Amino acid sequence: MSYFDAASSAPLHPVARQALQASLDEGWADPARLYREGRRARLLLDAAREAAAEAVGCRSDELVFTSSGTRAVHAGIAGALAGRRRVGAHLVVSAVEHSSVLHSAAAHAADGGSVTEVAVGRSGAVTASAFAAALRGDTALACLQSANHEVGTVQPVAEVAGACRDAGVPLLVDAAQSLAWGAVDAPWSLLTASAHKWGGPAGVGLLAVRKGVRFATQGPADERESGRAAGFENIPAIVAAAASLRAVRAEAAAESVRLRALVDRIRARVAESVPDVEVVGDPVRRLPHLVTFSCLYVDGETLLHELDRAGFSVSSGSSCTSSTLTPSHVLKAMGVLSEGNVRVSLPVGAAEADVERFLEVLPGAVEGVRKQLGAPVAGTPGSGSAQDLVVDALGKLCPIPVIELAKVIGDVPVGGVVTVLADDEAARLDIPAWCDMRSQEYVGAHPVGGGTAYRVRRLN
Amino acid sequence: MSYFDAASSAPLHPVARQALQASLDEGWADPARLYREGRRARLLLDAAREAAAEAVGCRSDELVFTSSGTRAVHAGIAGALAGRRRVGAHLVVSAVEHSSVLHSAAAHAADGGSVTEVAVGRSGAVTASAFAAALRGDTALACLQSANHEVGTVQPVAEVAGACRDAGVPLLVDAAQSLAWGAVDAPWSLLTASAHKWGGPAGVGLLAVRKGVRFATQGPADERESGRAAGFENIPAIVAAAASLRAVRAEAAAESVRLRALVDRIRARVAESVPDVEVVGDPVRRLPHLVTFSCLYVDGETLLHELDRAGFSVSSGSSCTSSTLTPSHVLKAMGVLSEGNVRVSLPVGAAEADVERFLEVLPGAVEGVRKQLGAPVAGTPGSGSAQDLVVDALGKLCPIPVIELAKVIGDVPVGGVVTVLADDEAARLDIPAWCDMRSQEYVGAHPVGGGTAYRVRRLN
Repeated sequence: MSYFDAASSAPLHPVARQALQASLDEGWADPARLYREGRRARLLLDAAREAAAEAVGCRSDELVFTSSGTRAVHAGIAGALAGRRRVGAHLVVSAVEHSSVLHSAAAHAADGGSVTEVAVGRSGAVTASAFAAALRGDTALACLQSANHEVGTVQPVAEVAGACRDAGVPLLVDAAQSLAWGAVDAPWSLLTASAHKWGGPAGVGLLAVRKGVRFATQGPADERESGRAAGFENIPAIVAAAASLRAVRAEAAAESVRLRALVDRIRARVAESVPDVEVVGDPVRRLPHLVTFSCLYVDGETLLHELDRAGFSVSSGSSCTSSTLTPSHVLKAMGVLSEGNVRVSLPVGAAEADVERFLEVLPGAVEGVRKQLGAPVAGTPGSGSAQDLVVDALGKLCPIPVIELAKVIGDVPVGGVVTVLADDEAARLDIPAWCDMRSQEYVGAHPVGGGTAYRVRRLN
Repeated sequence: MSYFDAASSAPLHPVARQALQASLDEGWADPARLYREGRRARLLLDAAREAAAEAVGCRSDELVFTSSGTRAVHAGIAGALAGRRRVGAHLVVSAVEHSSVLHSAAAHAADGGSVTEVAVGRSGAVTASAFAAALRGDTALACLQSANHEVGTVQPVAEVAGACRDAGVPLLVDAAQSLAWGAVDAPWSLLTASAHKWGGPAGVGLLAVRKGVRFATQGPADERESGRAAGFENIPAIVAAAASLRAVRAEAAAESVRLRALVDRIRARVAESVPDVEVVGDPVRRLPHLVTFSCLYVDGETLLHELDRAGFSVSSGSSCTSSTLTPSHVLKAMGVLSEGNVRVSLPVGAAEADVERFLEVLPGAVEGVRKQLGAPVAGTPGSGSAQDLVVDALGKLCPIPVIELAKVIGDVPVGGVVTVLADDEAARLDIPAWCDMRSQEYVGAHPVGGGTAYRVRRLN
């Protein structure tokens, strides 16, 4: 098996395992107690905090351990918003943040706050100027990830942090995907991360809040972790998280070069070996270990299943997987093709041979799925004999509406229009993306009974 | 070392350790993913849920894993209150609940809700009739612990649950201290627990919500754990928690008999071997492993330190420990002496020989602390020559105000009054308790500049 989904969760790092096992005997007691077992637990907790703070680049009294990265984000956003309630209730986030950030924003909006989502370009990055333009006099908090979790694009955090500082707005940086590779080199106000993303155990998140940042913890009071993370501390896991962060950092310089080269190879080879593929995300300003591409006329779930059978574990932002019926909000915000989407995120130590095997297996897997779905073969122009056509794909899921469109586009003359009726959410993204890829004209969309009519003019 | 503070946190059970180590290899992936590692993680999670639900006595789809018992309580109370918002915003809790419950109640009150605290008797138990009388037409939720965490008294949960059912009010039972010993045998609506209390790892709580109970999760949305517990699941810890719960349950019948006898021995021997001691909590309707007593004229922190030096780890509800300046709210609600308070909670497997050694060491340790503090020796009546006296103990911490009182009571004639000026919060509890123990009359208290004047009439 080749596990290529490190961005979801990394296998436990050997150092994390050792540290966890070593601290099970000493880390189970209450660190608030004065007796021997409590003092030992406290020593472990203090040492882990020092180590994690050093890796984050903050003071140890600025950092607390939460029970997950999601909890760190929830607590960080809620606390920072409450701390600046007098300034206003406006929150700025990028459109491609992790769901924990966007769900916090939605909760804030439901609670009467206002939210601005800063749009991203086709690479998935915000521009510092667009982000700065969203800041207002009543902006209580801004949030920007260090790098995107689905496409790997690195955000201009330093520039955005500068703009936030100029505007007097605290910036929360969700560093979940990048902290393994290095500290966030920017004047952030709050920072969040998640240990299981770097090979630490599940159950540990980090929340750093710079001294001087106004912060008011929300929810019932609790004395643990400076009052910022309720619940008994999981010290063995915290020790393992801190130890493994140091360990992956020690390997980061060399490993990032190695993985970056492997990802460059995937980017190039996928583009040349798989027809009708779109490799997305910034090719240069990106995480070292992550690449995402979308395959036209492919059902993401079926492709994942085929790859799993071939021994590869990857994830997908396509809508057509069993866990969701809407395409990834990241792909949507970027305006790129979402069907047949595959994210490859290599864990530390991923073997070159496994990557090679993946590149050998992938084209056949894609071709197999396309055959199953009856996808049209490229380069077979139709007769152009029909007048304008209407294709009824109502009730059909991604990628069927696009396949139906592709099958009939040659049946209308150049200048003729095909109207696709569809109710699958992915069509809104994938029909325009198909037009881009095929150099056809996307005319627009309008609601019709039970769905949407997408109009496409044949240009070639 | 003898660790006698299982009620704070139990050492990791061998079965928990085995299960944790065994599942580190299989439990790190995202259980929501479709690939092999995700499916394996899902299987582990599902099996742990089945096992935990069986031990709790609920359906597995009624139970979610939270990141701690505290989180389970916070989420359970907030969700149940929100689910019944239309009924009203009244919350009923006992006065001796765990701080996570009382802090949730305080947050609810701060948010505009109303809270009734049901008083307890001197044993620490509520009466079902007093609890029932607190239920109102607008009561959204009631909370009652299965057994008290500081004094071990078992609450009349079945009777209270019946009263709640009759009133149509859901009852949340915090079973943190009792779940190791057996399921809660009562028609509860919600139940919470914490794995590290039974020898599971830290980082795992349980929240069970019966089908049909209105529940609206608060906070940002998250798809994990049926939407009731945000954040990536810590599956190895969850597996270890469920496995160790089964293991302690298998030992519970025999071990509870053994520990109950050891605790009976402690209760009897402490009362006879330590002068001026009050053993608190219900002697019969109690947890098997827990006993609490308070020693007059003793500074809790110093006593804990002496016991720690002698190799015993126990905790204290006294105010005079470094972590708090107010006495335990439980002792306060019971109206019992808080100074020199010691809680002994035996872990599973506690050795009889260690308990014996504790009983040998304790009297000398108490005597040593009393000597250090210059506590009066019992049975030395004073001259009775003075008129009414005023003792200024402002700025002095527990147990000094009580010691000062005891030193001079003999200096006033029978019928004379000693007024103690004190600003330490514990005096409010301990001066009346001393009067009880010494058969003197507690006249009352009134505010004076910078503190409170406590008036005591000498009766003997």
